[in-house]
Amino acid sequence: MNEVYGGVEGGGTHSKALLVSATGAILAETDGPCTNHWLVGVDKCIEGINDMIRKAKISAGLDVDTPIHSLGMSLSGGEQKAAIQKLIDDMAKRFPKLSQSYYITTDAIGAMATATDHGGVVVISGTGSNCKLVNPDGSQVGCGGWGHMMGDEGSAFWIAHLAVKTVFDAKDNLVTPPHDITHVRKAMEDHFQVSDLMGMLPHLYRNFQKSHFAGFCRRLAEGASAGDALCQYVFTQAGKVLAQHILAVLPRAHQELFSGSLGLPILCVGSVWGSWELMKDGFTQVLSQAKTEYSHFTKYSLLSLRQSSALGGAKLGAQAAGAVLHLDYSTTASVFFSQSFSQP
Amino acid sequence: MNEVYGGVEGGGTHSKALLVSATGAILAETDGPCTNHWLVGVDKCIEGINDMIRKAKISAGLDVDTPIHSLGMSLSGGEQKAAIQKLIDDMAKRFPKLSQSYYITTDAIGAMATATDHGGVVVISGTGSNCKLVNPDGSQVGCGGWGHMMGDEGSAFWIAHLAVKTVFDAKDNLVTPPHDITHVRKAMEDHFQVSDLMGMLPHLYRNFQKSHFAGFCRRLAEGASAGDALCQYVFTQAGKVLAQHILAVLPRAHQELFSGSLGLPILCVGSVWGSWELMKDGFTQVLSQAKTEYSHFTKYSLLSLRQSSALGGAKLGAQAAGAVLHLDYSTTASVFFSQSFSQP
Repeated sequence: MNEVYGGVEGGGTHSKALLVSATGAILAETDGPCTNHWLVGVDKCIEGINDMIRKAKISAGLDVDTPIHSLGMSLSGGEQKAAIQKLIDDMAKRFPKLSQSYYITTDAIGAMATATDHGGVVVISGTGSNCKLVNPDGSQVGCGGWGHMMGDEGSAFWIAHLAVKTVFDAKDNLVTPPHDITHVRKAMEDHFQVSDLMGMLPHLYRNFQKSHFAGFCRRLAEGASAGDALCQYVFTQAGKVLAQHILAVLPRAHQELFSGSLGLPILCVGSVWGSWELMKDGFTQVLSQAKTEYSHFTKYSLLSLRQSSALGGAKLGAQAAGAVLHLDYSTTASVFFSQSFSQP
Repeated sequence: MNEVYGGVEGGGTHSKALLVSATGAILAETDGPCTNHWLVGVDKCIEGINDMIRKAKISAGLDVDTPIHSLGMSLSGGEQKAAIQKLIDDMAKRFPKLSQSYYITTDAIGAMATATDHGGVVVISGTGSNCKLVNPDGSQVGCGGWGHMMGDEGSAFWIAHLAVKTVFDAKDNLVTPPHDITHVRKAMEDHFQVSDLMGMLPHLYRNFQKSHFAGFCRRLAEGASAGDALCQYVFTQAGKVLAQHILAVLPRAHQELFSGSLGLPILCVGSVWGSWELMKDGFTQVLSQAKTEYSHFTKYSLLSLRQSSALGGAKLGAQAAGAVLHLDYSTTASVFFSQSFSQP
């Protein structure tokens, strides 16, 4: 099946896979569970990927036992070299009929490859968070992406954790909450099905599931939209810290990235960006501060993907296998917000 | 063996067990691994306890198959009622020859019972951290003790994490470090045997062991003593946040607790207090602020245990089983620091 290329978008809660023809036509799309190997382990990760691609082959009317040309995977948690090589080796060994070749990159690079060939900044905020600057020459500078034990600032997990921690600290009288905790406490008891703080312990330890914990973020978004001040506060904080990630990589961005009509292109990926209106004030406030330091930073545009970053994964996987997959970038991403700074 | 009482001190890294006679004489002492059931699971926890008490029976020349009168356990992680009842039920079922009765309390209450009958504040900082006010009438008010996912501020884990996070944030250009990170980065690479930040991921996720991570704190204490500013900084922060826990429970302390010759007695438990000199500035600074709010708060004394809090566990276990175990408090704890506030 030399003419079929596979791609995977692996997230901390859901995953997607697709099969593409050489002309870029999508032959089949499938969904699957979390495939972050740090969260679910190597076996569950590669089994989940195998399942999705098998289903996609069936859905596209292809023979499941004939390997596709290449499989490019854009994975949350797809950074550490040794771990990635192990994933690839295990897949090739356990599922030799899946694909002729395997390629793994991070969710950030896969997303960027879906949107453009020219680089920019990609900021992921889904279950976890990550930020990557890709310069036009392909060089990369990262900030974050270390998972919930060492960051994930601005992610759904982080927002959920900040809200829960605010309740704990208020109950403990350790920190005065910035706003009344009543709504968040009730929403927490409802989401986690607990009646007190003690009840939260199994959710934090024995039965910890990052994606379920992060799922509390959705309730907070609802609370914020309904006007609860603490819910609004945690999203404002998320907007600030995500913008802070961009400031962290800005000094390393090539001048060229600022000169297009969009200004600095910032690709926003992940479910938390669905709450953009709640994060907007914090985000724009922090980025506005940067204009004084960088005179060429006069404008930026936020883009969102209109296609799964499995497509970018497929492109990079094909490329690594010596093939070329053309994507029509006018259909893969679009601008949803721009800000220009008037120079004093 | 009606005349023999058992006690356990269960920590996040090490544990201790002892057997005591009715007169309070220690018949045997043994050591064991982490017995925090949140960290190692119920089975490992109760097996570890069984092993220690069996060994103690042998060491005391007692028959291993004859149950002792009572076993009182002072456990880190011994708070949540349902979880505690399950531990007790499982122990009674799996190890019926161990003891006639079982009693579990928290490490904080076990420590307090070792030092005094009159109450005070206990602040634990070992692998994890916790603070508990015990009023003279036995009523309790807690702050913290939620583990590394929701607090543990001022603990060895927290200090280690703060130092590592400072390195990550500096490398990411996300936060400017308060001091040069060179020494801490090298110590981190040495302790965790890694050559870069990526190498830390297995230590944070797949192979995460709280006690090993927390063990990095010892290196930081060495660095602080040798004069490294960032190492000193993290201990100052620990001193501040531990004092903050005391301020959190202070409003609920009965007047009586302030009126003894020691002022407010604060029992300091756990390995991190071995670095008291490094935490002193931060700690005293925060507590000094409280004197303006609480006019009766004119003095406090810090006490450390001279005996394992397994002894207090044994006392409470005996008490719950209807027996009385007399401890000589003049030998179980002593004052290592006092501060008086001159009133303006």
